[in-house]
Amino acid sequence: MSLTVVGSIAYDTVKTPFGERERMLGGAATYFALAASQFGTVRPVGPVGGDFGDSELEVLRTRGTLTDDVQFVPDGKTFFWAAEYGWDLNTRETLDTQLGVFGEFEPQLSEAARDCDVLFLGNIQPTLQSSVLDQCHNPRWTALDSMNYWIDSTRDELVKVIERVDCVLLNDAEIRELTGKPSLAAAAREILAMGPSSVIAKQGEYGAVLVSPEGFFSLPAFPLETVVDPTGAGDSFAGGVCGYVASQRERQIDHALLSTAMAYGTAIASFNVEEFGIDRLVRLGFAEINARVGELHRITQFTHPSVEETVA
Amino acid sequence: MSLTVVGSIAYDTVKTPFGERERMLGGAATYFALAASQFGTVRPVGPVGGDFGDSELEVLRTRGTLTDDVQFVPDGKTFFWAAEYGWDLNTRETLDTQLGVFGEFEPQLSEAARDCDVLFLGNIQPTLQSSVLDQCHNPRWTALDSMNYWIDSTRDELVKVIERVDCVLLNDAEIRELTGKPSLAAAAREILAMGPSSVIAKQGEYGAVLVSPEGFFSLPAFPLETVVDPTGAGDSFAGGVCGYVASQRERQIDHALLSTAMAYGTAIASFNVEEFGIDRLVRLGFAEINARVGELHRITQFTHPSVEETVA
Repeated sequence: MSLTVVGSIAYDTVKTPFGERERMLGGAATYFALAASQFGTVRPVGPVGGDFGDSELEVLRTRGTLTDDVQFVPDGKTFFWAAEYGWDLNTRETLDTQLGVFGEFEPQLSEAARDCDVLFLGNIQPTLQSSVLDQCHNPRWTALDSMNYWIDSTRDELVKVIERVDCVLLNDAEIRELTGKPSLAAAAREILAMGPSSVIAKQGEYGAVLVSPEGFFSLPAFPLETVVDPTGAGDSFAGGVCGYVASQRERQIDHALLSTAMAYGTAIASFNVEEFGIDRLVRLGFAEINARVGELHRITQFTHPSVEETVA
Repeated sequence: MSLTVVGSIAYDTVKTPFGERERMLGGAATYFALAASQFGTVRPVGPVGGDFGDSELEVLRTRGTLTDDVQFVPDGKTFFWAAEYGWDLNTRETLDTQLGVFGEFEPQLSEAARDCDVLFLGNIQPTLQSSVLDQCHNPRWTALDSMNYWIDSTRDELVKVIERVDCVLLNDAEIRELTGKPSLAAAAREILAMGPSSVIAKQGEYGAVLVSPEGFFSLPAFPLETVVDPTGAGDSFAGGVCGYVASQRERQIDHALLSTAMAYGTAIASFNVEEFGIDRLVRLGFAEINARVGELHRITQFTHPSVEETVA
């Protein structure tokens, strides 16, 4: 498979009810790559500064991720982000954001990165996402992330990129904000009308929903006893989804395939949040992912009796 | 089947982005009974005042609900509640609450109501819930609802009732508040340790989760294009769950049965919120409920490939 992801590589300082960690390797492209590399090689495209070390590059390469497109800016600083989570981990306060080299990022993809089968446009300025699409040689499948900041400030540019991708992968609140529609079903239908063939709505601890012309698919999050650090949950989910899609080169990318992809994304994200930062992703094995996909399958089954059996 | 529900019968004034309705027939026991009566007869136990009319009683009796245990207090007033929902229907402001005869309610069950197979203790003072349990003749299955007010003000009494029921059916936020545990899995396990054999966590637009010693079951809400009035969603869900359970007299009430019951509750609740108040419940047919249960089944299916098939 060949999978390219464009997004942030960062240092994160995170405080949760379970402790605090300083300057962990993070960023959307990092979480995405560590998840997607379960299925094959990935090329993250993103900038780092002179403070970024070889040991961090080695971590990125854990499962064969190709780091040729990590762009070094020796006289700049790597994106830094600090946040604190509330007691139930559902609220988060950003304490510090220093964009550093990420603020000046202009993605220039290598020929190998342009030649990808699957492209994931992480949460960057929509015109930069468009520029990446322009550079790529007609990938088989493309997906996009964004955030409320771009929806508010550059909605027209964002819609222009959305019109060009196969899948929009956003939080459900962002999908509502983008469309102004309170109903997720109606909002997703509006996005499908813009061009994409699928919308995946992330719902945090509640799971995720796929909407396509073939209908709905709804998947809960994996039930966990303890969440230690939710950072990167959405990005590792996206990495699992796209990694699975990229690995299925012989199959049609349809509703059924994306549903299974979401189960893999959900399983990987569930491991991710059980430890700080990328700690768990780094040593995660495919057999344990597969076991959780099986468990997800089990906890979503119910018998649907015929009318005759159920009427009292 | 024989099913008894104890709870409020009310007049509701509700404003949503889709309009406003005054003094509709409402209350937890009303929504519950109109849902549960899809599966057989139900006996609601609750007080009404002199302002309560015969036409409202007729509505309650729509599908054979027995109203012998509706307690008339001629010189009192029926519970009145007024609320306004926000644009996305996820927030609600209570504008007025006049408890009326519900404030003095002391449930006295008829012999027939005491002799129920299934008992649902709606959201009333926990010591009153205990008194109802004392009156009943060992029902086959009992479930309980409550609210944050009782969790805050009468937690000890609430725990005492919880110890005596088979199922706790609460919003996920209430389950967290009751146990002080942010993880739903851990919180539900703590409630199971108190005595019940199942916990059903309602998650509003996200669906519901069942936790029992047999594990988890997670079900999304039915995806709707338009929600007109969320009032009674939780109560009609509970009515569907308990109605289905009561109708399955020959079967063991286990994890699998409760999972199917939740699908029926979810389907009925989804119809309920598509119109104001009880309008849709009153004219709801079983075939259309069954069709939505089938659709819920369809939108939660995914293929779980073996490891061999998925590794790239």
